[in-house]
Formats: sequence, C-alpha cells, structure tokens
Amino acid sequence: MSSEPVIIRSHQPFRLESGEVLPELTIAYHSYGKLNEARDNVVWVCHALTANSDVADWWPHTVEEGAFLDPEKWYVVCANILGSHYGTTGPLHNNPATGRPYYDKFPRYTIGDIVEGHRLLAGMLGIKGIHALVGSSVGGFQALEWIAREPQRFDRLILIATDAKASPWTIAIDETQRMAIKSDSSWGEPRPDAAQAGLAAARAIGLLTYRGPEGYNLSQQDKESGETFMTHRACTYQQYQGEKLVRRYNAYSYVAILDAFDTHDIGRNRGGVDKVLAAIPCPTTVVGISTDIIFTPAEMKELASKIPGAEYREITSPFGHDGFLVEHRQLNEILTPFING
Amino acid sequence: MSSEPVIIRSHQPFRLESGEVLPELTIAYHSYGKLNEARDNVVWVCHALTANSDVADWWPHTVEEGAFLDPEKWYVVCANILGSHYGTTGPLHNNPATGRPYYDKFPRYTIGDIVEGHRLLAGMLGIKGIHALVGSSVGGFQALEWIAREPQRFDRLILIATDAKASPWTIAIDETQRMAIKSDSSWGEPRPDAAQAGLAAARAIGLLTYRGPEGYNLSQQDKESGETFMTHRACTYQQYQGEKLVRRYNAYSYVAILDAFDTHDIGRNRGGVDKVLAAIPCPTTVVGISTDIIFTPAEMKELASKIPGAEYREITSPFGHDGFLVEHRQLNEILTPFING
Repeated sequence: MSSEPVIIRSHQPFRLESGEVLPELTIAYHSYGKLNEARDNVVWVCHALTANSDVADWWPHTVEEGAFLDPEKWYVVCANILGSHYGTTGPLHNNPATGRPYYDKFPRYTIGDIVEGHRLLAGMLGIKGIHALVGSSVGGFQALEWIAREPQRFDRLILIATDAKASPWTIAIDETQRMAIKSDSSWGEPRPDAAQAGLAAARAIGLLTYRGPEGYNLSQQDKESGETFMTHRACTYQQYQGEKLVRRYNAYSYVAILDAFDTHDIGRNRGGVDKVLAAIPCPTTVVGISTDIIFTPAEMKELASKIPGAEYREITSPFGHDGFLVEHRQLNEILTPFING
Repeated sequence: MSSEPVIIRSHQPFRLESGEVLPELTIAYHSYGKLNEARDNVVWVCHALTANSDVADWWPHTVEEGAFLDPEKWYVVCANILGSHYGTTGPLHNNPATGRPYYDKFPRYTIGDIVEGHRLLAGMLGIKGIHALVGSSVGGFQALEWIAREPQRFDRLILIATDAKASPWTIAIDETQRMAIKSDSSWGEPRPDAAQAGLAAARAIGLLTYRGPEGYNLSQQDKESGETFMTHRACTYQQYQGEKLVRRYNAYSYVAILDAFDTHDIGRNRGGVDKVLAAIPCPTTVVGISTDIIFTPAEMKELASKIPGAEYREITSPFGHDGFLVEHRQLNEILTPFING
C-alpha cells in the first residue's frame, strides 16, 4: 500500500552546481517511526531512478519490525529526488519565471544538487547526526556524494549495488535510454505525456540491465506450444513493463535524472575517487548481488576494498540488479545486525 | 576492404514456413578459395544480424592463409541471409505482386527459411557434402537449424557464442530493440530511410549487449577533466555507433531479422532441443567467450554437454559477445587444428 508523501517548501532560491537557480524548492518525503528525544535514531534512505519517497512501498519487507529499517527503533526518512515525478521540484513543475512547466528545459543538475536537497530537508526536520545512511543502486550515488560532503555526519554507511563514479558502462546504458526516448518525435512537445513510446522503450532497456540473463531465463520461459510464430512471454513482459512505467512517470523527469546520474563522480575536484573513499570514517557495509550486470560483484568488492574496514557481503540471487528489491530476507540478515550493532 | 557479393536469382516460388510465398528469390553470396575437384573442401559460414556475406570483411584475420578459414585450402561460402539489407531478398526489394518494396509488409519467416535459402544456393553451386559448418552468434542459429535438417551433410560443426533455441533473455533484447524502432513515428512509412532514429537507438541497445560492462569500462573511460557536465565518451560512442548503422542498414530489415531470430528453436516439433542435439553425428567444437552476457559461458558449456563428443573451448576476452569478432588469434588457435584435423 502506497501512501502520500509530506510536501515541504523552501521559498529560498536553490542554487544548482551548474550556476542556475531554482527560485524555490518543493521536497516530497516520507518518514516512518519517530525521531527520539536525543535525535540520534535517524536512518536516511536514498532512492533510485523511478522510485519515490515511500520506501515501505518500493522496498518490501524492509520497513517492518525486526527488519533493518525497523520503524519501532528508527526514524526512517526518504526524500524524493530533485527532478523526479513524485513531488519534489522537477520538469513537470511550473517554472516561476515563465508560469509554465519546465518540461525539457529543466536546468541541468548533479547528484550533489540532489544531496543538497536532502540536507535542506534534514535541516528543516531538525536532524543533525544521522545514525545510518542507506543507498541502493543510484541511491548509493547520493549516499556516497553526501558522505563526501559531510564525512562526520553519519555513524553507519550502507551501500548496495552502486558505485563511487558513473562508469562508462552505466553511462552507455543511460545514453541508450535517452536515444530511445528522443527517437520518439513527440519528445520536446510541451505536454506531460510527450515521448511515451520512447519512455516505454527506455524502461524496457532499463529492465534488461536490471534483470539480466538469469532473471529473464528463470521467469519468462514460454510454455512449449509447437507454434512457430508464438507471442513470447519475454515480449509481453517488456511491453507490459514499458506501459506500466508510462502510466506512472514522465519522459522529462526520466531524462533529467539520467543526466544527473551521469555527473556522478565523488572524486571530481577532490583528488580522485580512491582518496575520498579512503577518508570515509564510519563503519560501512557494501552489498553486491551475485548476478548484477550493472554494478557487478567484482566492482562492488573493489569498492569495499577502498573504504577503510568496510565489509563486503554478497546476496545470492538470480534476479540481477533487481535482487536488492527482491531478496529482502538476505538483506535483513546482513543489515539488521549492522545497523543495530 | 569489402567486396561486392555475387548475386544469383531463383525464379521458382520460395515457400516460407508461414505458408506465404516469395515469388522469386535473390541470394547474395561471397566465396573465397576454390572448390576442389572432389567437391569436398567446402566450409560454409553463417553470418549474424547486420553482417553481410563478405566474411573476410567483417571477420578480420579469419579468411587468411593459415587461419581457420584458409582460402588456400577451403572453398569458403557465406550467403547473405533472407530479409537482410545486403542483397538477398528483403524488405527493400520489390514485391512482384505490387511492384513496390515490401517495407514493413515483408512476410514473416524463420531461421528454417534462411537455411532453405542456404540449401538452395548450395544446390546451385553444385555443393553436396560440406566439410565444416560455422556459425557465430545468430549465425549459429542457422548452423544448428541446418544440421537438424540434414544431420549427415557435414563433417565438422563449429558453434561460437550461440544457442539451440532463442532464450527469453535474447528475445527480450530483440523486443526492446523493436520497441525502440517502433517508437520512432516514421516506422511504417513507405521509404527506405524510415525510423532511422529508432534504428540508431536499437543499435545502441544491441551494442550494450555485445560489449557488456568490461568492454565499455575498458574502452570508453573518460579523461579526467574536472568538468561537471562533460560529454562522456560512452555517450559519443553510442551515438556514433547508432549513426554508423543507420548509414549502412534499414529498419525494416533489422526488425524482420529480429523477428526471425525469435522463432529459433531446433527442438520445435522434433521432440525438443536435447533430442536434436544428441543426434548431431559430426565432431563439434563449441566456443564460449568469458565475458559474453548474451550467450553466457555457462550456457555455452551446457550446449556443448548436450552434443555427443563436443569439445567446449573458451575465449578469454574483455569484449563480451563481440569477442568473437575481436579475438581472431584465439579463434584461429582453437579452430584451425579442428577444421584441418
């Protein structure tokens, strides 16, 4: 069951790394549990591409009693990211300068800008120290950028299937999705439902990378029918998933966020990735997924090896990158003791 | 250096598995070397998706003295596949019934139909027995379908990075490419350059799967620049590769061929894949590529295990599926003794 986010507004200009300024900033967020009197029980979750701030909805069985995001113990906060479709200022919001939505004219922004939105919200909520910072997939991009900006703010860091810098591989995946969206000639039209066919194709591309060979071959086998020209389950699945995203998202937010992801590099103008990772002062758990073809186990091990004392743990799953959404039992087993300990 | 194919025409109606009939069939092919008097030195190569019949052009250093397709020893033949852009009857050819090109109305066809084209050409060339049948990638689909139809015709079988049946994973990749092409609203327009932006996106999707994480991360690293909004090499590469295909191919052939690939199942109406593989009577070498994410090493090992006496060999390469085009030295080392022995 999804629930509505809380909407909070900052009427201060929000300056982006590009130098452009958003005249105001709306932030949509969810919280679970209660902030204790000592204000030291905050767990901050950073969400991925098309997710929203409702962690309990998109990450089943993690925000539950006994799970690693136990709302009886923790004040769990998740903010919708800048540019998203789900409440925080994005391409479908009105540009106060024109009185019309930004659409494809939303200013370029970075992972750092997304993190500044999180920091702003934390300030508004009266949060100072954060017990644990959790980032899965491109949520981990935000977590790493945040800890690079405020290394002393966190007691624990949890990185799941992510990276310290967008790799050529992930950038190529993003670019391919942009190509699919922009090959839809309605891209650029000033309406929220522009480029829907392109967006569906982009989602289908994303899914290939989220699920990978094992995922598809396990779940999308056809029944033996003897038919030569059958409708394959794998085709129906790609079409269905594309349509499903189109019903809940928009192409302008999708492209804006992909663009932001490609700027990810915690080492930029800080002396390189290795130096920043070596300066992470808090206990860290890095989780890889055995069949992930986006952030491969080999890369996740390497990431862990560069963070002092970080523990590398691997989820065994046939579901590729999506394993982090599916294998909540393994995640809870790994992360509950870590977050409580 | 590419060379022009030989064009040969059959004026007999060519009946497809679908029941539809092509009133005539044009076949474009290349040959290298000479057919010996005993007519027993034929090596037949089946090409992949967007390739043509000019093996020496698309498969560097394999059609050379001392290589496994040595034209001093072998009469190497490759036919352009049905539906392709490169000379054999396809969507840009005139439909004799209308006097206009087929475009998106080209009849559906199968891997079996492609193979019947090969058989027809072999007959026209006076070829009976074939010393070695070679198929890489979806060329292997054709090779396996052919040997299922004529198990006694071949003395050697070479299967490189391929499968006996299109898997849900490969079908999902194909469907995603079709979604990208058809999201281009010029798809369906009766002109050879329809859906070019969609075709470019489809090619970019294909490349992701051909190269995989290691391939991109090895060859498309950006130079450190300190720029926040840089133009990434991986983006330029995807765009460039898309445009490059658009200049040499057409969207209608691309989709027609993907559709045909999805029909691949050597076990259909023959009692299943395992039974057909178990009946392959000739010495077989199966080659996998260490980083191939389309036809994974695990699947290639399994394929080999189902063919009596087949030898499994693995190429070590960071270039994923494309490794078969790049690692000619390893291929020649493995295949030259096999084909000569």
